[in-house]
Amino acid sequence: MIQATGGVGADDELRATLTTVTTATASAMLWRRGYSFTFMLGATPIQRGARVCGRAVTLRLGPGRPDLATSEADRNTKDPMWVAVEALGPGDFLVIDCGGNQSGATTGDILAARIQFRGAVGILCDGAIRDAAQIRDLVGLPAWSLGVQGLGFTPNLVSLDWNVPVRCFGVTVVPGDYILADDDGAVMIPASLAQEIADVCSEQEHKEEFIRRLVQQGVPVSECYPPNAATLEKYEAWKRSGH
Amino acid sequence: MIQATGGVGADDELRATLTTVTTATASAMLWRRGYSFTFMLGATPIQRGARVCGRAVTLRLGPGRPDLATSEADRNTKDPMWVAVEALGPGDFLVIDCGGNQSGATTGDILAARIQFRGAVGILCDGAIRDAAQIRDLVGLPAWSLGVQGLGFTPNLVSLDWNVPVRCFGVTVVPGDYILADDDGAVMIPASLAQEIADVCSEQEHKEEFIRRLVQQGVPVSECYPPNAATLEKYEAWKRSGH
Amino acid sequence: MIQATGGVGADDELRATLTTVTTATASAMLWRRGYSFTFMLGATPIQRGARVCGRAVTLRLGPGRPDLATSEADRNTKDPMWVAVEALGPGDFLVIDCGGNQSGATTGDILAARIQFRGAVGILCDGAIRDAAQIRDLVGLPAWSLGVQGLGFTPNLVSLDWNVPVRCFGVTVVPGDYILADDDGAVMIPASLAQEIADVCSEQEHKEEFIRRLVQQGVPVSECYPPNAATLEKYEAWKRSGH
Amino acid sequence: MIQATGGVGADDELRATLTTVTTATASAMLWRRGYSFTFMLGATPIQRGARVCGRAVTLRLGPGRPDLATSEADRNTKDPMWVAVEALGPGDFLVIDCGGNQSGATTGDILAARIQFRGAVGILCDGAIRDAAQIRDLVGLPAWSLGVQGLGFTPNLVSLDWNVPVRCFGVTVVPGDYILADDDGAVMIPASLAQEIADVCSEQEHKEEFIRRLVQQGVPVSECYPPNAATLEKYEAWKRSGH
Amino acid sequence: MIQATGGVGADDELRATLTTVTTATASAMLWRRGYSFTFMLGATPIQRGARVCGRAVTLRLGPGRPDLATSEADRNTKDPMWVAVEALGPGDFLVIDCGGNQSGATTGDILAARIQFRGAVGILCDGAIRDAAQIRDLVGLPAWSLGVQGLGFTPNLVSLDWNVPVRCFGVTVVPGDYILADDDGAVMIPASLAQEIADVCSEQEHKEEFIRRLVQQGVPVSECYPPNAATLEKYEAWKRSGH
Amino acid sequence: MIQATGGVGADDELRATLTTVTTATASAMLWRRGYSFTFMLGATPIQRGARVCGRAVTLRLGPGRPDLATSEADRNTKDPMWVAVEALGPGDFLVIDCGGNQSGATTGDILAARIQFRGAVGILCDGAIRDAAQIRDLVGLPAWSLGVQGLGFTPNLVSLDWNVPVRCFGVTVVPGDYILADDDGAVMIPASLAQEIADVCSEQEHKEEFIRRLVQQGVPVSECYPPNAATLEKYEAWKRSGH
Repeated sequence: MIQATGGVGADDELRATLTTVTTATASAMLWRRGYSFTFMLGATPIQRGARVCGRAVTLRLGPGRPDLATSEADRNTKDPMWVAVEALGPGDFLVIDCGGNQSGATTGDILAARIQFRGAVGILCDGAIRDAAQIRDLVGLPAWSLGVQGLGFTPNLVSLDWNVPVRCFGVTVVPGDYILADDDGAVMIPASLAQEIADVCSEQEHKEEFIRRLVQQGVPVSECYPPNAATLEKYEAWKRSGH
Repeated sequence: MIQATGGVGADDELRATLTTVTTATASAMLWRRGYSFTFMLGATPIQRGARVCGRAVTLRLGPGRPDLATSEADRNTKDPMWVAVEALGPGDFLVIDCGGNQSGATTGDILAARIQFRGAVGILCDGAIRDAAQIRDLVGLPAWSLGVQGLGFTPNLVSLDWNVPVRCFGVTVVPGDYILADDDGAVMIPASLAQEIADVCSEQEHKEEFIRRLVQQGVPVSECYPPNAATLEKYEAWKRSGH
Repeated sequence: MIQATGGVGADDELRATLTTVTTATASAMLWRRGYSFTFMLGATPIQRGARVCGRAVTLRLGPGRPDLATSEADRNTKDPMWVAVEALGPGDFLVIDCGGNQSGATTGDILAARIQFRGAVGILCDGAIRDAAQIRDLVGLPAWSLGVQGLGFTPNLVSLDWNVPVRCFGVTVVPGDYILADDDGAVMIPASLAQEIADVCSEQEHKEEFIRRLVQQGVPVSECYPPNAATLEKYEAWKRSGH
Repeated sequence: MIQATGGVGADDELRATLTTVTTATASAMLWRRGYSFTFMLGATPIQRGARVCGRAVTLRLGPGRPDLATSEADRNTKDPMWVAVEALGPGDFLVIDCGGNQSGATTGDILAARIQFRGAVGILCDGAIRDAAQIRDLVGLPAWSLGVQGLGFTPNLVSLDWNVPVRCFGVTVVPGDYILADDDGAVMIPASLAQEIADVCSEQEHKEEFIRRLVQQGVPVSECYPPNAATLEKYEAWKRSGH
Repeated sequence: MIQATGGVGADDELRATLTTVTTATASAMLWRRGYSFTFMLGATPIQRGARVCGRAVTLRLGPGRPDLATSEADRNTKDPMWVAVEALGPGDFLVIDCGGNQSGATTGDILAARIQFRGAVGILCDGAIRDAAQIRDLVGLPAWSLGVQGLGFTPNLVSLDWNVPVRCFGVTVVPGDYILADDDGAVMIPASLAQEIADVCSEQEHKEEFIRRLVQQGVPVSECYPPNAATLEKYEAWKRSGH
Repeated sequence: MIQATGGVGADDELRATLTTVTTATASAMLWRRGYSFTFMLGATPIQRGARVCGRAVTLRLGPGRPDLATSEADRNTKDPMWVAVEALGPGDFLVIDCGGNQSGATTGDILAARIQFRGAVGILCDGAIRDAAQIRDLVGLPAWSLGVQGLGFTPNLVSLDWNVPVRCFGVTVVPGDYILADDDGAVMIPASLAQEIADVCSEQEHKEEFIRRLVQQGVPVSECYPPNAATLEKYEAWKRSGH
């Protein structure tokens, strides 16, 4: 039933709009719609200044067991990790559920290069990655993780499955969810709400920028936030004046 | 490919043998066979003195999302939690992967009563349970969890799926694995190794009992552990004498 | 505005009723009324089998500072800790907010003896206590804490104030709230809801006992929980039959 | 008895002097005066290179309860959070005690703008803030927190009170204490010691700069730290020469 | 310079006296003598009701490295763990510093049997032990640890050295220190203070028992604790009357 | 048996080669040689962009005890910390084992200046340092620690010994091991393997750079990683062409 997105690219505009909003505004607007767990507290970027949005392709790892390890020969065709990477397409975001396990790194620079070549916009991993400097500087793929580890994908870890619901930094992610990530962290946006969130967040951020300016000029918060009718009127005028 | 066991009961003898060994011996013997992660550190029993063994029926929960919640009407037929419970049969062990989330309890006394009625031998949950005293004293179902919580299965949690590989207390568990649990914790035994582990553990524990008696009588460990030929000969004689 | 209860004893019947319900049922019923944070996860009893209910008299401690320490001479009249203890009356529950700080113990057996003599029913402390065995066996006062520490109330700690809202094990407690504690942990019940909770919990537990018996006899959960009209009718009959 | 400072500005010179010393020197000099808990380990700046000093205006939050929430209508006049913000004046430092709770953010960019407009020099919060980039880049108010969270001030949190002693990152802070914060963290300086600390720290840092230069030139630490009479004489000469 | 005690047994009387006092009183009396870190918070007994005192023989483990592992042939003569065990004598207490590492168990029932046979009174380990039930019920050796683990002494661990100062549960222990342990935890008593602590603790506990009885009879704490001259006089009379 | 290196400088070339490889490659190559615990997860640099390699001179600290403190007069000749610093020579790396204890800082700018003057290339400490900005900007000595703390070396800490095996960030380090540290963390390289690791890592990184370029050009990972014969041939050609 759940399908990897395949990177159809049909949502480029939506993703572009979402990329203009902050993770803070997105999670706040989702809270108002009944979603309590969307912000991924602790997702730490390896770079500064990136804000990307993509659709989740999920992967799930667990503590290693020899009977679940994929043979070298079958790796590319059967190992969920490699299959997931090859299923990535333009606009996808690889979400790796490690359950906080940092005993091995899930991704190094070579795999990151492949993930980028497939068109994915980022990696989100609640475990460790390695080669952080190379991924940032030589590959140029944005990544968020719990930590950085030197060891690679050792027998400490095993790929369990992909394209299933996963947990990541305290949030449930299903394949096809939108993931928006910036310097503050990452937020999950259900696909069915993504357009609505894109619309309301753009408006909300524009409005809050106006209010912040008012406050910086000395207008008491009590008079403008939440905005009353007079403030909203001024805001509309400000918009009409070209902001 | 992975199938819930359905509680066929064909393994009653095997489970009975495994129930005579300790989680310590089982995990040590699995280590020798290349399995590093089988002992579930932190699985805390709500009762004292129980040692049970059953085949894993797995269930996976995640932080709640309204779009993934099952409606009350569909609960019994579609919610993975309820479906999993009804799939339990004699000799099964319900293994619930919460990822350490204790924001709601997965099981209370009514559900535990059903789990027991279905024939399951225990519950293992790396999150919280509730009604611990009732489960222990009135239902009589052995349970191991991370903690005890008063709140029930609130919107803080959602059932993700069942009958899939899961993680529990740092161990990967696949459906059909044997779970052996006692006062020390719990251990996962792959189904394909269960008979072998049952055989070697019984022998190992018998041998170690003999060695411990020697040591208690003053034989230096250097002379009897690991046992040399002379010690093994004495052990065989001890066995022949009826021990 | 906030007043310590003074142990008026007028609520003896209410507290007696609350003492018949479990922390699990109480927190679940409070959840239905919009209270998300009432169960105190991690409150560990030093005894087994106690269930007590009392009204919160609160005390707040912090990391020590010499300028905030009370002189020996002023201790009994000005130190918030000692004033709080002397303000306790019959039916009170001393709630000590340490913020998880276990660098010193808040209460030993002599202070516990005084707390008990004043009529309080228990101590709840999200830090450490000392003399646990003596408090349990020689004083006989039920206590719940984060841990047990040998050191007493050293300069590592200072009393900040009492009779104010406090946090304890992740729950906000205001003076006069009811605290119900048992082997599973502790729950905060707002005074304004205490009678209602007492009423609905007694009924709820009775009903759940009936349902658990049905389930133990093989009735599927889908048919009796939540109870449908037929089950409720059977329940009423069961009650009329003297249960 | 405890009074918010009201931002009288009479201590501008003192604060300016304190701003020239490091949190390390200040906490070390306080240790010598019997204060063990003054350095706030874990207070993480959202900006680089800021060092500010202000007088503490305190605020205390707790896990949410509907009965303690302030209505929208009363927010500005009764909610401790909003009242505290409006009580801020020039030279104040807002200190928010969350007890480590990061389930909601205490401050976003609009509130930060108001805090700055009131004249406060910074925010210190042992919970989460949101809109970190905007607070840093668009508002320009220095802030130190435990983490960054997207969600705002949801019902997960409630304002308990303000202008009371609080705990923050393992330190007890009373209203009117000086808070000095830089890239290393934050330190609490009791008001009664602030002038003394300012005096001794300036001298201490000057002396340590001289000693560090000696050590960099090869003078063994054993000969100059702590400085003996000869070293002190050289230091006085160095000062007289214009350093 | 530091020597293992060799179990001379000359301190039997001292150890017997110390065994009559509680870890709480011992750590409090050490605090008054300038020792801040003597109580081992988190040392969890595997049995109930034991109180033992012995002299520390120390052992230090670390994360495993193949180049530091002792060959099977050299185990008994060169591995610090085995050498330490064979150095134990009557009245010793084996203190194992794992730094919190629970990836393998340091001691099982066979080794515990040897430790007991050598005359040691207990094991203290800030890592894991295994075979807890057998150590408690079949060997009968008291033990305190951080947790219980099934895996034995695998390549995850290596013995570093013995008979050196170690850290254990936040306390520095040097060989020959007295270790006193009971249900509340464990306390380190420097050898040079042991007789003094034994003397003052016995008196202190006797006095506190008298005071607790007064308090239980209703004497306000302000009148008897700390005891004033009148209380001390009554205490002396109570002693003279045969208590 | 174990000797501090004394900074003979004979290994300058080896250290220079190691400095060209990443901690990730080094720990991966060590893993292949049976070393599971070499990467120090959590070792956080106070600077950006440094990569240094030196031989470990070890120091071990513990929770303070007055009887183990060195008098001021004996500090330079007997305190293990000061003796260790004076034993440092060119190419050494000071490794301080605090066991995670951050209650005091081990090193400030004056001591760091001395450490640098002695020729050491860096400090690695699994506790706290202070004066981070001065160490980075004025002294210029690279340092990795668990955190930054204002308090100095207070009675909370005591030097236990130096030039012994230590634990640091989950890795066992013996004197003379090579420590390689960069922005990702730090890795321990046993001295006996250092030349081999230097050789294979240089080659490995060169090869992986080639492969990453292939992947960035679109070659599937399945065709080039691990490299098959054709890829290796292309790699050799690439090298011959001057890369």
